[in-house]
Amino acid sequence: MAQTSAIKYELLHVEKHTGARLGKITTPHGEVMTPMFMPVGTQASVKNISPRELKEIHSQFILANTYHLWLRPGDDLIAQAGGLHKFMDWDGPILTDSGGFQVWSLSDHNQISEEGVTFRNHLDGRKMFLSPEVAMRIQNNLGSDIMMQLDEAIPYFESYDYVKNSVERTTRWAERALKAHKRPDDQALFGIVQGAGFKDLRKASADSLVALDLPGYAVGGLSVGESKPEMNRVLDFTVPWLPEDKPRYLMGVAAPDSLVDGVIRGIDMFDCVLPTRIGRNGTLMTKHGRIVITNAKYKNDFSPIDPDLDDYASTHFTKAYLHHLIKANELLGQNLASLHNLRYLLKLMEDMRQAIAEDRLLDFRAELMENYGYNKPNARLF
Amino acid sequence: MAQTSAIKYELLHVEKHTGARLGKITTPHGEVMTPMFMPVGTQASVKNISPRELKEIHSQFILANTYHLWLRPGDDLIAQAGGLHKFMDWDGPILTDSGGFQVWSLSDHNQISEEGVTFRNHLDGRKMFLSPEVAMRIQNNLGSDIMMQLDEAIPYFESYDYVKNSVERTTRWAERALKAHKRPDDQALFGIVQGAGFKDLRKASADSLVALDLPGYAVGGLSVGESKPEMNRVLDFTVPWLPEDKPRYLMGVAAPDSLVDGVIRGIDMFDCVLPTRIGRNGTLMTKHGRIVITNAKYKNDFSPIDPDLDDYASTHFTKAYLHHLIKANELLGQNLASLHNLRYLLKLMEDMRQAIAEDRLLDFRAELMENYGYNKPNARLF
Repeated sequence: MAQTSAIKYELLHVEKHTGARLGKITTPHGEVMTPMFMPVGTQASVKNISPRELKEIHSQFILANTYHLWLRPGDDLIAQAGGLHKFMDWDGPILTDSGGFQVWSLSDHNQISEEGVTFRNHLDGRKMFLSPEVAMRIQNNLGSDIMMQLDEAIPYFESYDYVKNSVERTTRWAERALKAHKRPDDQALFGIVQGAGFKDLRKASADSLVALDLPGYAVGGLSVGESKPEMNRVLDFTVPWLPEDKPRYLMGVAAPDSLVDGVIRGIDMFDCVLPTRIGRNGTLMTKHGRIVITNAKYKNDFSPIDPDLDDYASTHFTKAYLHHLIKANELLGQNLASLHNLRYLLKLMEDMRQAIAEDRLLDFRAELMENYGYNKPNARLF
Repeated sequence: MAQTSAIKYELLHVEKHTGARLGKITTPHGEVMTPMFMPVGTQASVKNISPRELKEIHSQFILANTYHLWLRPGDDLIAQAGGLHKFMDWDGPILTDSGGFQVWSLSDHNQISEEGVTFRNHLDGRKMFLSPEVAMRIQNNLGSDIMMQLDEAIPYFESYDYVKNSVERTTRWAERALKAHKRPDDQALFGIVQGAGFKDLRKASADSLVALDLPGYAVGGLSVGESKPEMNRVLDFTVPWLPEDKPRYLMGVAAPDSLVDGVIRGIDMFDCVLPTRIGRNGTLMTKHGRIVITNAKYKNDFSPIDPDLDDYASTHFTKAYLHHLIKANELLGQNLASLHNLRYLLKLMEDMRQAIAEDRLLDFRAELMENYGYNKPNARLF
């Protein structure tokens, strides 16, 4: 039952000491190198950042949110515009999620059944219904390169019985998604392995989804409140059950230590709103850790934000100017901070790929932990 | 009593039918062609626009607000940063106003005397004092290419006696400003002709300021609520009293018809927050008039914003996408709309300079009025 696949994963090198993977994904909108980080463009726009700025910082892939685009401007309108790439002027690959996560986190009165989820949306309170088939119809309209199956977003510490039933339903939903998929030639459907912290349920989930021979797999239900050792533990036993010749995606992760720890465990793809969200509040990611630029000590600090980074903010402006912009609510400050944080993460992934190619990923991790401040006793981390 | 001048104005051509001037101003930060429009960077940032975007749309000059920078981050800090150009990474010329207008429009409890103005600032309510000397000290710290003298911003329809006293004080304040000016070699001080709608007071104001041989003059107290014919009437009689070899500046004007009518009356320089302010709310200036992009009819309009314009928004995105961004409060929408409106005005001035060079400014005006919709009976104009 091999599927026609819109994407192709090529494993280029396995890091000697960790098993981390250097790879390449060929998509209908070009080739990308992995491991990689995908900026999030929730409503068909990466917040405060233009498509040409995304190119400038070497963003390979972006993510967009099915739930938000379904509500506004509507997937029919985007189809009419010629698809999401054309609508938002992004010619690189796009991944869309299923909408499920937002139904749980943003909407009211959601009720799940075998058929799907009924909920009231957060914009106008209208009652709506999301099912595996609806999620596929929307994503087929959007025309993303990679689509995610609808799954149930459940808290990490649910009971074994609840998780078991949910995991089995998620597999049935993957089968239904596959059947409803109208564009297998130019859109790839990924499955999502669930099972919270239960090893046997993770295995059952992985095995049943792998049997569907999907073009890629996400490890879901992580980065939802569990500890970092807990997340790493789940990755440690789950990733080996995924096929070597398909990309593996860890959703909602952008903390530098989590990225390197995910890569070490064989993850190829990451996304998160963190860099743009904290950027809007004036928190900057740098080689030497986080900077809260509104702190008084930066008021007259005329040094660059991050002398080691090549982004527009770091090469043209001072900390004092960024401090002023954010304090004065000038939106240019949000743009520069968001652009900077995204470039920081994209460069981190570039450096990580280099470290994999050179079989020195553990040294790279040690340097990152030291430089970023993870080894300091009272470091305020994320 | 000729002053050392930091800037030089060169009159290149006088339009045959109107007397409109094509000119060039040489400043410490480069040459600019006039007539021209200056984008406003209130708090050391043109709202939502980066310096490199300003270059891209061929912005020659920008304006910054003394009042705002005095309060935050402080002119001392900006001097410490190496001046405003360096602080905000803008290497072209900058004009700063005196701060007087904001004292009147934004602050509370202001009290004017011969010495200056006492007021409580709008940020923290602290009592402050602005005088001709203080306005010069701040602007000398900022290091702008053109500085404005402190004047009194009075309503257009004040009594004759009030305006007469105010105008005479404004001239005394110009003399004090000139004495307090510490950097005549690299900063030019402009005087401001006041006098509301009273011809004799405008003449007295112009004559007394021209006697000071300042490097340039603004016609002040306009665009403050008077009608457009009223504004044109004041320009008609005031501009001829200003020296031919100095630039003339009309403050706070950006409506296309007011720009061409000002140019026809011999004005060389304009500024206004209008293009960025209306852009943030989704109003776009185009060859065929104003577009309120949030209007439902643009929801699925996949045509460019302005097919005749060369800006990033017009050449890469559709009206439907801009409609979506502004409706969804995506800040990229504000960036694109602001950039677009500024480019519209800068291009309008480029075209106007061409029309002056070719002695066809009246034809240009007639086309502009027709195309922009000023001739429509119920056109909603600005």
